[in-house]
Amino acid sequence: MGNYKTGLETKYKIYTISKQLFYENGFIKTTLAEIARESGTNKAMVAYYFKNKNNLALEVYNEYMVANKVKTQNAINEKFPGCNVMLKTAIEYRVQNRSCRLNRHLNQFYHELCDMNIFMKNESATVGFVENINRSYKLGLSRLEVKALALANLAVVHGLHVARDDGYLDCSSEYIAELEIRLLFQSLNFDHDQIEECLDESRRMIDKIKISVDKNFAVI
Amino acid sequence: MGNYKTGLETKYKIYTISKQLFYENGFIKTTLAEIARESGTNKAMVAYYFKNKNNLALEVYNEYMVANKVKTQNAINEKFPGCNVMLKTAIEYRVQNRSCRLNRHLNQFYHELCDMNIFMKNESATVGFVENINRSYKLGLSRLEVKALALANLAVVHGLHVARDDGYLDCSSEYIAELEIRLLFQSLNFDHDQIEECLDESRRMIDKIKISVDKNFAVI
Repeated sequence: MGNYKTGLETKYKIYTISKQLFYENGFIKTTLAEIARESGTNKAMVAYYFKNKNNLALEVYNEYMVANKVKTQNAINEKFPGCNVMLKTAIEYRVQNRSCRLNRHLNQFYHELCDMNIFMKNESATVGFVENINRSYKLGLSRLEVKALALANLAVVHGLHVARDDGYLDCSSEYIAELEIRLLFQSLNFDHDQIEECLDESRRMIDKIKISVDKNFAVI
Repeated sequence: MGNYKTGLETKYKIYTISKQLFYENGFIKTTLAEIARESGTNKAMVAYYFKNKNNLALEVYNEYMVANKVKTQNAINEKFPGCNVMLKTAIEYRVQNRSCRLNRHLNQFYHELCDMNIFMKNESATVGFVENINRSYKLGLSRLEVKALALANLAVVHGLHVARDDGYLDCSSEYIAELEIRLLFQSLNFDHDQIEECLDESRRMIDKIKISVDKNFAVI
């Protein structure tokens, strides 16, 4: 019992320190040795609880994503009750792009994870995202189609983010957000007018959604 | 004059050796030290002519891509004269996926370049590809739109390839090719029936296009 509790405390300490280091210095610069030292543990213990740095980064990123999703949904429900799934999705894309634009720590961490394709090889929240649209709009997509389209859309989001961030694509983050939204719904066969309407409406709504990202990826 | 010729010969030797090593051992395993040793030069000379391994790999890949495109276009013109740009594009996607399926050396090299996002940060042939469709079908896309859509489609192609190759997405390479074609034309606002027709027709045509990849990425 005592050991179990100590174990959880150790795991939590490693996780918290990792989050701080990822936030301050990004993913690439942060080393397992540093995480071990700062958390008063050792590399074997970090490996025991989290296997490797990729896993730690994914846990940190997923915690941020879940908090971001919940707070965004709550804000939408409060400001725009009865808002449909398509609009909610568009708002989420816009919030994520805005947060990355306004918080350079989040942007760097996210950029590095995208650039290393870490998200593409793990069970991803995006599958649930596309499945939700599939169910809400009765699209009748198979499991494989949902997964393949989710991965394709994830690839687009990461690819555009990296290309822009590396200076190769010269446009606003809003342009990227709108392109992502458009490509997602086109891939799901929504019709053109419906997509443009969703873009216009979500453009009007986004300023009312006061979500931002603070120190250590806290969503406020 | 003598020096200039020697310089070109050295450059060519480095390039040829790199291509052989990339083909046999892939991108990651091949080192600049090995390229220098096998070509009878040194690392400084390799760096002088090609800057780094990424550039060498891009040159090798581009040479393959150009040969692949030319031979595919010739085969199409011979077997299916008057074939439209949309179908030609679909056939190119199918040929590339088939070649990767049938030649594990090409597949590994391509996979590694995709996984490291090397294509996403360099002026890419895909921009010309999308611009060609833009012109042929009078889509009226701006330069930024062409570039952003080209990058998005490149990201999709790479993302799906890597996800499938890493065992995360369980489907045929034909499924991937068709998804890539569909997503490309959806992103360019082609209508649903036109896309499905293009998929059906190109599926019937592909067996007649006898293009494959041999040793050192030779397209035959």
